[in-house]
Amino acid sequence: MAVKRATEVAAVKALVFDVFGTVVDWRSGIIREGQALGAIKGIKPDWEAFADAWRGMYQPAMSEVREGRRPFTKLDVLHRESLDALIQKFGITGLSEEETDAFNRAWHRLDPWPDSVPGLTRLHVKYPLAPCSNGNVALLMNMARRARLPWDAILGAEPARAFKPTAESYLRTVDMLGLQPPRVMLVAAHADDLKAAAGQGLRTGYVHRPFEQGPKAKPPEDTSGFDVVAKDMVELAELLGC
Amino acid sequence: MAVKRATEVAAVKALVFDVFGTVVDWRSGIIREGQALGAIKGIKPDWEAFADAWRGMYQPAMSEVREGRRPFTKLDVLHRESLDALIQKFGITGLSEEETDAFNRAWHRLDPWPDSVPGLTRLHVKYPLAPCSNGNVALLMNMARRARLPWDAILGAEPARAFKPTAESYLRTVDMLGLQPPRVMLVAAHADDLKAAAGQGLRTGYVHRPFEQGPKAKPPEDTSGFDVVAKDMVELAELLGC
Repeated sequence: MAVKRATEVAAVKALVFDVFGTVVDWRSGIIREGQALGAIKGIKPDWEAFADAWRGMYQPAMSEVREGRRPFTKLDVLHRESLDALIQKFGITGLSEEETDAFNRAWHRLDPWPDSVPGLTRLHVKYPLAPCSNGNVALLMNMARRARLPWDAILGAEPARAFKPTAESYLRTVDMLGLQPPRVMLVAAHADDLKAAAGQGLRTGYVHRPFEQGPKAKPPEDTSGFDVVAKDMVELAELLGC
Repeated sequence: MAVKRATEVAAVKALVFDVFGTVVDWRSGIIREGQALGAIKGIKPDWEAFADAWRGMYQPAMSEVREGRRPFTKLDVLHRESLDALIQKFGITGLSEEETDAFNRAWHRLDPWPDSVPGLTRLHVKYPLAPCSNGNVALLMNMARRARLPWDAILGAEPARAFKPTAESYLRTVDMLGLQPPRVMLVAAHADDLKAAAGQGLRTGYVHRPFEQGPKAKPPEDTSGFDVVAKDMVELAELLGC
């Protein structure tokens, strides 16, 4: 793995991060929370399929907002709408409103990948760090307190009132940092997110997360256009001189 | 000092803070930065008067936005406009654009009162903490990194796109925390800020900062209506069981 554009990377003053899949392992976390709920309620749906289906409804739900058919809506609300539909689809019964709400907040309790906190903690000494995630502020803040993610601010879709990958989601985040786009690097495990950010002038750091979608590794992405490519967050810190 | 409404205070789930005057000592900080700049440039204006004049232009500048005559504008920009006027008024010459910009960022480098970090660090174990300040995100984030203020998120005027004491400034901050107003306490050294927050249903914590306006203590305010009154941030932590 390598720094591909050293001059551009040396000018970076702050790092912003995709979160779901890049910093935290959403799939294992949702499966774990589902299994814990199932053990209490005596139900055994296929929690792996449930987790994949829940995440599968994520992009379509945001599209309503991105395409202007719906005003900006917090991800907690979109997650809850998807959850209500999936509870029906998977034939789950007997959940109280309180239990359903608590399960919806499973997204607030996702665990970081093992290298995330060590890597971020090193990066934090040199750079201000913030999420640039589609998660809402409370979700990201609760997650960070539980997992000890060293964010300096909680930025992204809710403060920007725009979901990624719209231009506004990146540009308003950069503006809140008081910087110009070439001074900010987006770190993500998703090529499409990084390409959209690069289109707005941000620098790009790709982190490999082959097992985001489960134990069968996802197909490799073309990372040749990104400024830095790292195998994990600790290597990213090393490559950035932290 | 005392907790006046124990039941209401026990229901609080997050604390938000006024910053200028409550967490940091803006007056000493601006005077110190002015003196440092003056030493380099060989100029000796009355930096105490300069600091008071700069802060004196703060409310009128925000009024333009609050009253709808101007779109939301970051405090860094308002500070700079005031600074440009004061440089003229105090007859200061010979500052480059770079020096003027650096002096404008003196507000990013204010020191906390001596009890602020110890008190916030204790409060942070129990409560999520965020500024609810008229400062912009970059200002508050840079200040927090320098002073090691343990914020979980940077909230307030810029994410809310509304200056205190408008209703929106408090209500959008509470909404981003994912809470209802009675679950959030505003901590401030200014009775008018707390009264406006209480008017929107927030809980209130008054912290005495008698020397905010200089060595001659400011007149005491009527604190009888607030939920908690503390002599400093460490006592606030004690009163809240931290």
